[in-house]
Amino acid sequence: MDATPVPETTATPDTECHTTHGYISDKARYLARLKRIEGQARGIHRMVDEEQYCIDILTQISALTSALRNVGLGLLDDHLKHCVVDAAQLGGEDAEAKIKEASDAIARLVRS
Amino acid sequence: MDATPVPETTATPDTECHTTHGYISDKARYLARLKRIEGQARGIHRMVDEEQYCIDILTQISALTSALRNVGLGLLDDHLKHCVVDAAQLGGEDAEAKIKEASDAIARLVRS
Amino acid sequence: MDATPVPETTATPDTECHTTHGYISDKARYLARLKRIEGQARGIHRMVDEEQYCIDILTQISALTSALRNVGLGLLDDHLKHCVVDAAQLGGEDAEAKIKEASDAIARLVRS
Amino acid sequence: MDATPVPETTATPDTECHTTHGYISDKARYLARLKRIEGQARGIHRMVDEEQYCIDILTQISALTSALRNVGLGLLDDHLKHCVVDAAQLGGEDAEAKIKEASDAIARLVRS
Repeated sequence: MDATPVPETTATPDTECHTTHGYISDKARYLARLKRIEGQARGIHRMVDEEQYCIDILTQISALTSALRNVGLGLLDDHLKHCVVDAAQLGGEDAEAKIKEASDAIARLVRS
Repeated sequence: MDATPVPETTATPDTECHTTHGYISDKARYLARLKRIEGQARGIHRMVDEEQYCIDILTQISALTSALRNVGLGLLDDHLKHCVVDAAQLGGEDAEAKIKEASDAIARLVRS
Repeated sequence: MDATPVPETTATPDTECHTTHGYISDKARYLARLKRIEGQARGIHRMVDEEQYCIDILTQISALTSALRNVGLGLLDDHLKHCVVDAAQLGGEDAEAKIKEASDAIARLVRS
Repeated sequence: MDATPVPETTATPDTECHTTHGYISDKARYLARLKRIEGQARGIHRMVDEEQYCIDILTQISALTSALRNVGLGLLDDHLKHCVVDAAQLGGEDAEAKIKEASDAIARLVRS
């Protein structure tokens, strides 16, 4: 059974994007990058399984962390360009909630 | 065919640990954690595939980044305790090379 | 002579905020936090001058880095709430430039 | 009165380095770098005081964060080369405490 954790959602229904999400236009590219990231994770698992040298495993962990972070920055940029701009143009509470949500996501990314 | 990138090694043969690597005593736990990380990566791929909300995907990317970083810090601690201490006790160039290697790995981890 | 580097500006005149900057309403608090940060930096300089123990100096460097990052996240949040929302409501190239600028600043913060 | 916080020490007396600290041979260079860092902090304070543009202030905060982190990595490298190697050669509890202390400092640096 796939032990993939079911991601809890932090967004409240009304803050979800009313239009399609920013990243959709680049979906294929994100999927390819995430497939590579999954492969890198599997590669690190195999390095530990084969008892490879610690430093080489750490090198791969840093590379994977950077790849992940770059996907995060891309998604964030798309989110600002689409969901945040759309909400800002609607104004009011929707815009405020959207900005707070984006700021919290940025803080998590910076601190992770 | 598994597109897992073949990790290049940065260690030179003579800097490799002469004894078993520090993490071996905890191998099962590292493998379980890395299997979960692989599952998280697959979960994020599926979130994008299902066009879920950007912020929820970003939340999972931050969680995965933290999990990865903690595995890295664990491996580094084990490496210091075993490989670096062993080399320091041997002294000479072996110790210097081992410390430099550890410092470079720490810098990569900090910067990733 | 104060060796404070003259900060180059990355913003192009036309992307500067047309209204007052978001942080102005919180200016006194930011100034107090930055004065503390300056004091922390001076404290670290003195620890090295007094040849204090490396680990204690590293503890203070991590504390200062976190304090700085939190000021950065605060400024970013204010910038999104004001400058980015204002530009988004104007729409057009101004909004696009403002979002790109914010995304680049977020990437620098994440990578620093 | 200089509001510089008095840095608490995390090291226990017996884990302090019995020999001079690793960074002492590079003390003048560290002092110059930290003096510049203090100047950068003062520069950011002045940018806020002069109500300069948020993005320009954020650019300087990222630059200062990187400069700080590089000083931290330098001190850590010196600490490993001297204090940790010396303790490892002594072996026993002293070495274990020194490695734990270094690992904790690395974790703080990575997470800050």
